[in-house]
Amino acid sequence: MTDVKVFLDESELPRQWYNILADLPTPMKPPLHPATGEPINPEDLAPVFPMNLIEQEVASDRWIDIPEPVLEKYALWRPTPLYRAKNFEKFLDAPVKIYYKNEGVSPPGSHKPNTAVAQAYYNKVFGIKRISTETGAGQWGSALSMACQMFGLQCRVFMVRVSYDQKPYRRLMMATWGAECVPSPSNITEVGKKILEEHPDSPGSLGIAISEAIEDAVGDENARYSLGSVLNHVLLHQTIIGLEAQKQLEKIGEYPDVVMGCAGGGSNFAGICLPFVRDKIHGKEVSIVAAEPTSCPTMTRGPYAYDFGDLAKTTPLLPMHTLGHDFVPPPIHAGGLRYHGMAPIISHLLKEKLIEARGFNQIDTFTAGVNWARTEGFIPAPETNHVIAAVVQEAQKAKEEGKEKVILFNWSGHGIIDLAAYDAFLSGKLTQYELPEEEIERALKSLEGLPKP
Amino acid sequence: MTDVKVFLDESELPRQWYNILADLPTPMKPPLHPATGEPINPEDLAPVFPMNLIEQEVASDRWIDIPEPVLEKYALWRPTPLYRAKNFEKFLDAPVKIYYKNEGVSPPGSHKPNTAVAQAYYNKVFGIKRISTETGAGQWGSALSMACQMFGLQCRVFMVRVSYDQKPYRRLMMATWGAECVPSPSNITEVGKKILEEHPDSPGSLGIAISEAIEDAVGDENARYSLGSVLNHVLLHQTIIGLEAQKQLEKIGEYPDVVMGCAGGGSNFAGICLPFVRDKIHGKEVSIVAAEPTSCPTMTRGPYAYDFGDLAKTTPLLPMHTLGHDFVPPPIHAGGLRYHGMAPIISHLLKEKLIEARGFNQIDTFTAGVNWARTEGFIPAPETNHVIAAVVQEAQKAKEEGKEKVILFNWSGHGIIDLAAYDAFLSGKLTQYELPEEEIERALKSLEGLPKP
Repeated sequence: MTDVKVFLDESELPRQWYNILADLPTPMKPPLHPATGEPINPEDLAPVFPMNLIEQEVASDRWIDIPEPVLEKYALWRPTPLYRAKNFEKFLDAPVKIYYKNEGVSPPGSHKPNTAVAQAYYNKVFGIKRISTETGAGQWGSALSMACQMFGLQCRVFMVRVSYDQKPYRRLMMATWGAECVPSPSNITEVGKKILEEHPDSPGSLGIAISEAIEDAVGDENARYSLGSVLNHVLLHQTIIGLEAQKQLEKIGEYPDVVMGCAGGGSNFAGICLPFVRDKIHGKEVSIVAAEPTSCPTMTRGPYAYDFGDLAKTTPLLPMHTLGHDFVPPPIHAGGLRYHGMAPIISHLLKEKLIEARGFNQIDTFTAGVNWARTEGFIPAPETNHVIAAVVQEAQKAKEEGKEKVILFNWSGHGIIDLAAYDAFLSGKLTQYELPEEEIERALKSLEGLPKP
Repeated sequence: MTDVKVFLDESELPRQWYNILADLPTPMKPPLHPATGEPINPEDLAPVFPMNLIEQEVASDRWIDIPEPVLEKYALWRPTPLYRAKNFEKFLDAPVKIYYKNEGVSPPGSHKPNTAVAQAYYNKVFGIKRISTETGAGQWGSALSMACQMFGLQCRVFMVRVSYDQKPYRRLMMATWGAECVPSPSNITEVGKKILEEHPDSPGSLGIAISEAIEDAVGDENARYSLGSVLNHVLLHQTIIGLEAQKQLEKIGEYPDVVMGCAGGGSNFAGICLPFVRDKIHGKEVSIVAAEPTSCPTMTRGPYAYDFGDLAKTTPLLPMHTLGHDFVPPPIHAGGLRYHGMAPIISHLLKEKLIEARGFNQIDTFTAGVNWARTEGFIPAPETNHVIAAVVQEAQKAKEEGKEKVILFNWSGHGIIDLAAYDAFLSGKLTQYELPEEEIERALKSLEGLPKP
């Protein structure tokens, strides 16, 4: 029997996050104030985020120390094991070695707590008493709920109404961790009240929930808002994944030919890939591939443009690959990948050709996910199925080319709260969404009149 | 930062299971044939179980080699980490060190696959093509589904109708792993048909499901039946947990004063404790405590008697602590602890005072479980909450006595598919079942006329 897992002791847990801003060959465009079109000032964001996180957002240091209390919480599930997927390799019958980081071992079952714990800590030391956020399917809301409980902060999560009703498990998880989960639109905020007056039965949307959470935070001097992806500091916190993977691969004398992750807002993909992008910038040969849904093809079909982060246009303008803030993705089960934009850092790397992006359709991703579950045991989240589909594609390519390849990917979370999606797939009821060109064109119109990067 | 987890490399995975039968100070009573009252012959069981498992059931060797293919599957999640629950210790503010094995890291989220994988393997090498079993809430059925998929066996799970309807996630898990999950009573078996004729709306019971699964297996020469707890060979396979824990504690120079587990059929408790019972037999001072529900108080209020393993009286008579095979436990959320009897090995150890048993009520167990989730992050299964309540009690005792204690327990599984139970608890709707003496007396009448041990 040969080993399929590589563990690190807690003493080997990375003590610093990696900040790619220090190594970019070309500088990133700044976020703009929508009213002035000028680069945004840190002070503009002070009512929304605590100043220590705003500073981290623009920090230029290559390495940023992980505070001791954050490391202590990380140690509850980190370092996560690096696995070799031998059974899946055998199933694929291709000349590949497949390694993956299992982020599903965290208490909420995904990579999200890597930044939730850090954000809760920084809010706490800045004197904040309460954090407000939004959540779609609930992965982010549950991670932040746990983190706030651990640092003695109150937490309010605005959860998109339709998910609140249809996916009760994640909100029950939030309640178990002591958070308040509110269906959005709610009558707690002015935005919510106004929408409810006009549409009492509104199913809600991520855009509405973001607007509610920001309003809720800004209106309370003891509260701040928190975002689970897209922003630089969120991606920074996730680099712990890739840094651990590098240590683990080094232990067994391996280096990947391809590094892969699924990408919605970009934080999961950034987590596994940024330390390898650094190697690539310094001359190392490595392909870095993001897997996104063909039904929300931010990178594969969206332009690089300045756009709002939310439907309600309350955020600064971010330079990113985007389908336009008006874009409403089809209701695929991978809720975490249904976002119109892509993190500015990831968008910049794509523009610079340091990474590439590929699209995968829903049926192919679930086919890959079921084959994974039946060989490796662990049932992947619908989001994770996208990167598994990318791994399958890469393995087939290696087979055709007769070339041996080492693949590393991030297994971002488990899918045992998403089993209804598997049920739909297994019973042939899963929808294969096609995205007509007109729909993208229509959504892209929302970019008209905005500054160009 | 000090370590909270102790890992073992796969090279340190125990290569043998531990068989307590080799070390018992007094011999166990044999199972009896219900018709003759004589000890049962291996041949009597041949239509039900493959002969290699029947031989293991009565084996007297102290150490039994774990087959290589079983080790390979174990390696997907084993060795499981040994954790120190520092945050919970701090919360309890008592002079205790709390260590726990996290069995929730397995793909189905519990300790059940330790025996499921072994049983699937032995059936496979014996030439069996299909396994039939029953499941209540679904932990066992899902573990066996995965194991059968891994060894290319078909799997049919009779799931108690009411759970099938109310708890869809576990059956969807079974489907994802390729098993056939049938609501019981079904019209596949004669037993099921007869019940459906009389009670078309029967909600089913574990007793009915066992009878259906046995009938289904016995009627097909290529099929066998599989049980997830109670029997000697099942307990044997679970000893991997305690054996790993011993290695892990040795690494950090610790030895427990108290070893604890929750007990339904007894396999989880056996898994953590049997290797320590061996130490105790050889003179080591260690308390070994089983936690059971006060609403199903098999060990704390049931006599040691010969009884059937199922309601339908299709099994051999087993010598065990039992509330009588007619006993129907209140519908507590810890479905895995709702069994009228206790594994013969565990019952024997209790009779010999090598272990002790304590009862915990539903409200106290969920109080303990929520406090655990809010400090340690991981949300425990309702079954696991029983042992956490026992740990709380032990810590309070240590505090009152001013005595330092090292506690080891088995965290048998996570509760993220059981969040509805947490919801009931948090909203004050959880029922505190009281069990009137008359009800136990009534159930114990079903033991009348049976042989006495």
